[in-house]
Amino acid sequence: MSNRRVMVVKSGGAAGFAEWQGCFAALDPALELIYWDDAIQVPERIDYALLWDPEPGWLARMPNLKVIFGSGAGVDLIAADPDLPRHLPLVRMSTPEATQRMGEFVCWAVLSLLKDGRRMAIAQAERRWDYFEPPFRAQHRTVGILGLGNMGQRCAEMLRGLGFPVIGWSRTPKAVQGVENYAGAGALDAFLGATDILVCLLPATPETQGIIDAATLGRLRPGGGFVGVGRGMQHDLDAIMAALDSGQLAGAVLDVFEPEPLPSEHPLWAHPKAILTPHVASLPTKAERAGAVAAAIAAYERGETLPNLYDHVRGY
Amino acid sequence: MSNRRVMVVKSGGAAGFAEWQGCFAALDPALELIYWDDAIQVPERIDYALLWDPEPGWLARMPNLKVIFGSGAGVDLIAADPDLPRHLPLVRMSTPEATQRMGEFVCWAVLSLLKDGRRMAIAQAERRWDYFEPPFRAQHRTVGILGLGNMGQRCAEMLRGLGFPVIGWSRTPKAVQGVENYAGAGALDAFLGATDILVCLLPATPETQGIIDAATLGRLRPGGGFVGVGRGMQHDLDAIMAALDSGQLAGAVLDVFEPEPLPSEHPLWAHPKAILTPHVASLPTKAERAGAVAAAIAAYERGETLPNLYDHVRGY
Repeated sequence: MSNRRVMVVKSGGAAGFAEWQGCFAALDPALELIYWDDAIQVPERIDYALLWDPEPGWLARMPNLKVIFGSGAGVDLIAADPDLPRHLPLVRMSTPEATQRMGEFVCWAVLSLLKDGRRMAIAQAERRWDYFEPPFRAQHRTVGILGLGNMGQRCAEMLRGLGFPVIGWSRTPKAVQGVENYAGAGALDAFLGATDILVCLLPATPETQGIIDAATLGRLRPGGGFVGVGRGMQHDLDAIMAALDSGQLAGAVLDVFEPEPLPSEHPLWAHPKAILTPHVASLPTKAERAGAVAAAIAAYERGETLPNLYDHVRGY
Repeated sequence: MSNRRVMVVKSGGAAGFAEWQGCFAALDPALELIYWDDAIQVPERIDYALLWDPEPGWLARMPNLKVIFGSGAGVDLIAADPDLPRHLPLVRMSTPEATQRMGEFVCWAVLSLLKDGRRMAIAQAERRWDYFEPPFRAQHRTVGILGLGNMGQRCAEMLRGLGFPVIGWSRTPKAVQGVENYAGAGALDAFLGATDILVCLLPATPETQGIIDAATLGRLRPGGGFVGVGRGMQHDLDAIMAALDSGQLAGAVLDVFEPEPLPSEHPLWAHPKAILTPHVASLPTKAERAGAVAAAIAAYERGETLPNLYDHVRGY
C-alpha cells in the first residue's frame, strides 16, 4: 500500500500504546504504530511521532521524521530536549472536544461564583435551608480571560451567550468578536483592573510561574472571583487564600494544583469560599486526540498548514 | 398635576409598602401609592392595584380600577377571588432581570449535572482528590424544557449557546429559534422520550400538581437528569429519589419544595445525586418589579398592549 506510514508513540506506556493502536486502526489503517522502545531499532522508518515525555536525543536520530505531535496540551517535556529537531513542526494537542469541555467547565465555574455554589453546597451538607439573594446578574460581572487561545475564545463565546461582559488578555493582539482585547505585558494591569472574575487559561511557561499572586489578585476589582484552570504552578495558594479572607476575592474555583493531588491536609479544601475540583476541567480522550492527530496528518499530507504549532521563542 | 394616579398595594405588609413607595417614587412620581388597608375608605380613587394576596371581594368595590398587577410570578391567590373583576387585565409579574437570573440558574444546574458537581462537592467536603471523567459533552445531552414562557425561552437560548441540543414542551405551539417544539398534552410523551435532562418551569395549576412523578421520570432517556425550578407542588420527591436510586436519573437539582423550607430530616438533603438549593433560582427585587409595573402602566396609558396577561381559562 503506497500510503503506508509509521508513527512512533510514547504516551501512557505499553497499556496506552495498545489503546492508541485501537484508536488509529479505525481512523487511518495505513498508519503503522511503533512503540517508542522498539523505534530505536528502525529509526529511518519513522515518519511521525506522538509523545508526552521522550528521552532526550532519541528524536534527533530519526532521519525521516516529519512532524512531532504532543499528546497533551502542554509540550514542555518535548521542547525541553536539547537535541530536539527544531526545524520540524511540533504540534500541541488541541481537540474541539477538549475546547468544548473547557468552555463548559469555565461556565460552570463562573456561574458557581455568581450564584455562590459553595455556600449552597455547605448548607446542603448541613441540611440547612440557607436562603440568600445573590447580589449580581451576569451583566454586572465582567469576566476577564487570561489567555485567548482556542479554549479562551470558546469560553468567551459561551460566557457572552450567558450575558457576561467578557474581556481578554493575550500576549499578542487577538480579534475575538465582542471581546475587548488587552495585548502584551503593558496592558495586563489595565486588563486586571477591568475584571471582576478572572479566568486563567495560560500555558505553563517560565513567565507564568506564580502569576496568580497577591499583586495580580490585588489589581482585580474588589469582591471578584478567580477560576484557575491553567496550570497549578501558576497559583500562589497562600495569596489566593489571603484574598478570599480579606474579601478582595468573593470566591474561587481551582481545578489545577502543584502538586496533584492537593494534599488532604491543605487548608484550602475546607475554605468556605473555595471550590476545589480534581483537574477535571478538560480531558480529551485518546480517541479524541487520535482524531485530532489523524486529521492533522491528513492535512499535512495534502500540503496544508498544521494547526496549533509550538513556537520555540514564545514557549507555547 | 394632571398625570396623578393612585395604586393600591398589598404585598409584603406595611414594611413592604414603604419599600414599594421608595421604588415607585423614583420611577413614576405622579403615581400615588395607598396601602391596602386604607384603600377601602377611598375605593373610587384607585386606578391600579399591585397585589400578592388580596382579601376576596375588595377589588370588586373599586369602580375605577383599570389594571391588576400580581407582585409574583404566580397570581393564584388573586385569581382565587370569586368576586375578582375578570374583565380587567390581570398582569403576571415578569421582569427581564428575573428571566435572566432563571437562565443563569438553569444553566448552572444543567452544567452541574453534566459535570457532576454534587460528586465534586462531596469529595471536597471529605478532602478527597476524586478524579473522574464526566462521560458527556453538552452536545450529547438533549435538554427538554417543560414550559416555554419568557423564562423557558431565555433558558433555551442560553443552553444552546453552551452547546446543548434543546427541545421544549408547551401547552400551545411556540416558535423558538433552534428549539424543537412539542405542543399539547398529546406530545408530552414524545417530548419526554427525546429528553436527557428535563427542566421543569411550569406554573402552578391543577394540571401540574405532582406532574414530576414516576411515570414522567420513567419516560425520560435512562441516566438523565432533572432540574426542578417550577413549583414544589409539582415534585413527587419519593419518585425522584427512587429514580435517582435506580439510575433512571443520574442526578437532580431541586430549588422548589412543598413545604418550604424542606424539613431538615428529609432524606433528600443527604442524597449523593441530588443538589438542593433554597428557592434561589429567580428572585426579582422590589426595585426590579416596580420597574416592570411602572413600564406596564406607561404602556397601558399609551394605549399599548399589556404583557404577561393572566388567562382565566388556562389558569396562568
